[in-house]
Amino acid sequence: MGDSDLWRELGQQLRVDAVRASAKAGSGHPTSSMSAADLAAVLLAAHFRYDFDDPKSPANDRLIFSKGHASPLVYGLFRAAGVLSEEEFMTYRQFGSRLEGHPTPVLPWVDVATGSLGQGLPIGVGVALAGKRLDRLPFRVWVICGDSEMAEGSMWEAAEHAAFYELDNLTAIIDVNRLGQRGETMHGWDLSSYSERLRAFGWHTIEIDGHDVEQIDAAYREAESTDKPTAVVARTIKGKGYSKVENQNGWHGKAIAEEAIQELGGLRNITVDVPKPERVERHRFEPTPQEWPSYEVGSKVSTRKAYGEALAALGGERGDVVALDGEVSNSTFSEIFRDAHPERFFEMYIAEQQMIAAAVGMQVLGWKPFASTFAAFTSRAYDFVRMAAVSRATIKVCGSHAGVSIGEDGPSQMGLEDLAEFRAVHSSTVLYPCDGNQTAKLVRAMADLDGISYLRTTRGDTPVIYEPDEEFPVGGSKTPRAPDDEDVTIIAAGITLHEALEAADTLGSEGISARVIDCYSVKPIDAETLRSISTPIVTAEDHWAEGGLGEAVLAALADAEERPAVSLLAVREMPHSGKPAELLAAAGIDAEHIAAAARSLVRAGAPA
Amino acid sequence: MGDSDLWRELGQQLRVDAVRASAKAGSGHPTSSMSAADLAAVLLAAHFRYDFDDPKSPANDRLIFSKGHASPLVYGLFRAAGVLSEEEFMTYRQFGSRLEGHPTPVLPWVDVATGSLGQGLPIGVGVALAGKRLDRLPFRVWVICGDSEMAEGSMWEAAEHAAFYELDNLTAIIDVNRLGQRGETMHGWDLSSYSERLRAFGWHTIEIDGHDVEQIDAAYREAESTDKPTAVVARTIKGKGYSKVENQNGWHGKAIAEEAIQELGGLRNITVDVPKPERVERHRFEPTPQEWPSYEVGSKVSTRKAYGEALAALGGERGDVVALDGEVSNSTFSEIFRDAHPERFFEMYIAEQQMIAAAVGMQVLGWKPFASTFAAFTSRAYDFVRMAAVSRATIKVCGSHAGVSIGEDGPSQMGLEDLAEFRAVHSSTVLYPCDGNQTAKLVRAMADLDGISYLRTTRGDTPVIYEPDEEFPVGGSKTPRAPDDEDVTIIAAGITLHEALEAADTLGSEGISARVIDCYSVKPIDAETLRSISTPIVTAEDHWAEGGLGEAVLAALADAEERPAVSLLAVREMPHSGKPAELLAAAGIDAEHIAAAARSLVRAGAPA
Repeated sequence: MGDSDLWRELGQQLRVDAVRASAKAGSGHPTSSMSAADLAAVLLAAHFRYDFDDPKSPANDRLIFSKGHASPLVYGLFRAAGVLSEEEFMTYRQFGSRLEGHPTPVLPWVDVATGSLGQGLPIGVGVALAGKRLDRLPFRVWVICGDSEMAEGSMWEAAEHAAFYELDNLTAIIDVNRLGQRGETMHGWDLSSYSERLRAFGWHTIEIDGHDVEQIDAAYREAESTDKPTAVVARTIKGKGYSKVENQNGWHGKAIAEEAIQELGGLRNITVDVPKPERVERHRFEPTPQEWPSYEVGSKVSTRKAYGEALAALGGERGDVVALDGEVSNSTFSEIFRDAHPERFFEMYIAEQQMIAAAVGMQVLGWKPFASTFAAFTSRAYDFVRMAAVSRATIKVCGSHAGVSIGEDGPSQMGLEDLAEFRAVHSSTVLYPCDGNQTAKLVRAMADLDGISYLRTTRGDTPVIYEPDEEFPVGGSKTPRAPDDEDVTIIAAGITLHEALEAADTLGSEGISARVIDCYSVKPIDAETLRSISTPIVTAEDHWAEGGLGEAVLAALADAEERPAVSLLAVREMPHSGKPAELLAAAGIDAEHIAAAARSLVRAGAPA
Repeated sequence: MGDSDLWRELGQQLRVDAVRASAKAGSGHPTSSMSAADLAAVLLAAHFRYDFDDPKSPANDRLIFSKGHASPLVYGLFRAAGVLSEEEFMTYRQFGSRLEGHPTPVLPWVDVATGSLGQGLPIGVGVALAGKRLDRLPFRVWVICGDSEMAEGSMWEAAEHAAFYELDNLTAIIDVNRLGQRGETMHGWDLSSYSERLRAFGWHTIEIDGHDVEQIDAAYREAESTDKPTAVVARTIKGKGYSKVENQNGWHGKAIAEEAIQELGGLRNITVDVPKPERVERHRFEPTPQEWPSYEVGSKVSTRKAYGEALAALGGERGDVVALDGEVSNSTFSEIFRDAHPERFFEMYIAEQQMIAAAVGMQVLGWKPFASTFAAFTSRAYDFVRMAAVSRATIKVCGSHAGVSIGEDGPSQMGLEDLAEFRAVHSSTVLYPCDGNQTAKLVRAMADLDGISYLRTTRGDTPVIYEPDEEFPVGGSKTPRAPDDEDVTIIAAGITLHEALEAADTLGSEGISARVIDCYSVKPIDAETLRSISTPIVTAEDHWAEGGLGEAVLAALADAEERPAVSLLAVREMPHSGKPAELLAAAGIDAEHIAAAARSLVRAGAPA
């Protein structure tokens, strides 16, 4: 069988398999798989370099199905590569199967989860960027995209960054099957609408018939040899190969009858021997040990500054730490890392989705990315953070300028929902330091955490209250005021911890003894310590009342033996501009309000 | 003074005012204001049609500062228009002032808050779309954009939709001052990089010198007469007019010395008499009353289907209701509205940011937009939802396919953080119905709610348990199992409410009496009812454990007299694919697990 015949046959096999698996499951997206089957077949059979026995090998090409709903096609490829048995293949979408409705890294050959459209290409940019700038290896990144998802702005963030960073190792294969979930896309089969846009963004583009295997092969060869990111814009037919559904609306995400198998020429069992990439040595950055930042107790430093200084030091200790920033590195202070380790810093401009996606892409190759922007703007990339968890990715995010305490810039710049956001992500760790030394230690701890970790920093300078050698284990807490016999407990973190200390002093002068707990680890929270509290509790946080520190405390106490009354102080009205102290007072989370809440709880609990 | 001289003088006045206000405040973005001063001056003096005494007039042109940090320029315009006194102007960024760090609708001439970059243009698309398709009025929408923010994918979603919807009433003025916050943008002064991209997206573009008032005027005239959305791509100088900072990096977001005022020619007090638009009649859609959907108790219907049917009926009742969808209208069932009211339905394709932005834009003109997509994908637009609250916008969002109960599609499609997301938004209402009749009533209630309201719907059919005439006030709850003397209380909503009922039946057969509360109003939650509970509580939700129903219940009880033990059942491990029942069981939130949790609480509380 000649190459072209093999490719055509393999395309048919992938179609048959998509039909079979979906029919068995009773759901899935066979028609979306059938349109891209030839594109995938030629890739696997003639261009992809991959060691299926060593999927983590840095030399491997990477294949990302940005159109993750074409999962039967993904799994069909793995079957064709000989790594998925017929038996397992037919467990598609069943409970307990590794073959989920949309691909996830539960399968070793899937690097990242897709299924939220518009994410695969930006993640591919991150992988390709790592390949060019970090690992410095010749692997290629192939991303199979849907045409519908080109409507996502994140795809254009990816287009912009791919061109800017000259990612000639990146190929986007756009499966223009004309039909989205509920009807025609904006551009139908107007291939030029995609290629003109992409060319304007600086890409090389090739328009082809996506069912002509020779054209596909030639396009991939061209992509491999151009010095730009390349888009293969392929006209395809949704449901290709089964006349009853071909190019018909109304068949998205629906299993189709097994009679299609007959029209497609029946079951095939072609196995492709995918060539392994040459063994190569990845680039590594040598550690350049430097002094760890430390701050004198009583001095003042912002936690965002300490983040930058600690990150730079961490980058000196460890060659695997990289940093990305959303064009605010002089605010987040990731610029300190940039200046110390320019080769490992990536300016992602004001494109937070691309920033998180790039971080997810880089961690595929084992890098430890720290991505920073204002806490408020992490919300721009929330779907990417959510999906990073589904990808079982390990990324670190720092949100600066959290809370009303930023002052004059006003509510658009205040991160007041970031704790809720990051707490409600699987595998997440949420850290919120109050001083420089604590920040530095937590930054170091983040490097070794799995999953999504988030550090919240504050704009203004805050007093250093902990010694540089103090330890701050993740999941722990500190008790900077621990009277022997307290009347009330104040729980705070970050900026409000300092307000809590001042409140405790005020209360002390009135004869009310207050314990102060610093919950710098918001998730996991120190439940053991919290559950030992027998006094009333005031929580205070520079965050909306929902989903933040207060509710984390309540959750830790929910089924405890002791369930003291909790007065939850948080931001409840839309803040305005003003000085930090004015805004903390207006929000009812400053020392005075904390003391008042504590007083009132103590009085309520006092014997009549 | 000739027109050009006036424009130039006004430009200088706006610069002086930006310097003055920021210097007084000690912060702000004068240099970003100075680059756009001439662009703004010519607009105000020669093109803008606006009745400052009647800012809500539908005939008014609309001006959106997508680069919201240029707020001193915005306020300078209002001063030049004679509506802001010198005294108030100088309160910029002070506590209590309407002149916040970034513009908000606290000022009557500001329609929407900006300050999160990349939002003004997509919101402008919504306003322009309302102008063309809903109000059918000749007003123009002018959006002043920064060059840095062109890196946000949302700007390209806007570009795509503006062209697709042929919004020739929309002009984007791109202030290409070359410098972002921390340095040069990707494209510096390469105007063609912007105009080529925009032309590829279907826009008309005009490149000009943004400090040449005649060129500016000519460009605006050209924009007014073309039949496409137009971008005026203007080369400008950051800090223009003060030689010490002109085109210098390092001056973003910093007040500059008052000595600049001298170089700029000193204080001016030009007042511009902005012409009012002609009085026009806005288009209104006539109500076409139709039968309200109702479902028979004991039958089954999905709440997403009931959403679509109720929304269509609501659109018949009220001509001000409009719907938008992110290319999944056959899943969210907003297609039922589309078919009933095609003129009021807007397909936003897979561009969730643009969808929410368009909703925000439409509500500026008083429309009641309902925007729908999968609950999971609302996270894509979280920054837009957050900012909508700062805009004091009234929008309605429906997230379908919430939770593990969607089944086979897997975790990428499961909205498991949406309750946390929407609870942590100011002004939000969060509703989560369990049956068709309840859904219909809540959809109707949403139309009259102010602020951000969110409805969470379920994929699968669920039993109808409430009569069609039952009422479900926002902030209320139902108690579908209300034994006289209960041992335990189960709190649930949506899909888990049915599991809770089954659990109560099981428990009843064992002699354990369980009250079941349906917290369909997750925010505001029925605190009064919750605080009357004296038995142990089980909460069950198809959502991550953080920030959802369980924590809402805990928050309501935090400082109550009675604080029963609460066992919080929620999703805690990453779900896989499987049948809905399998996944509810695996997550520990099905009837069996609820019953087990209840049993264990009852036993723990039993006298020894």
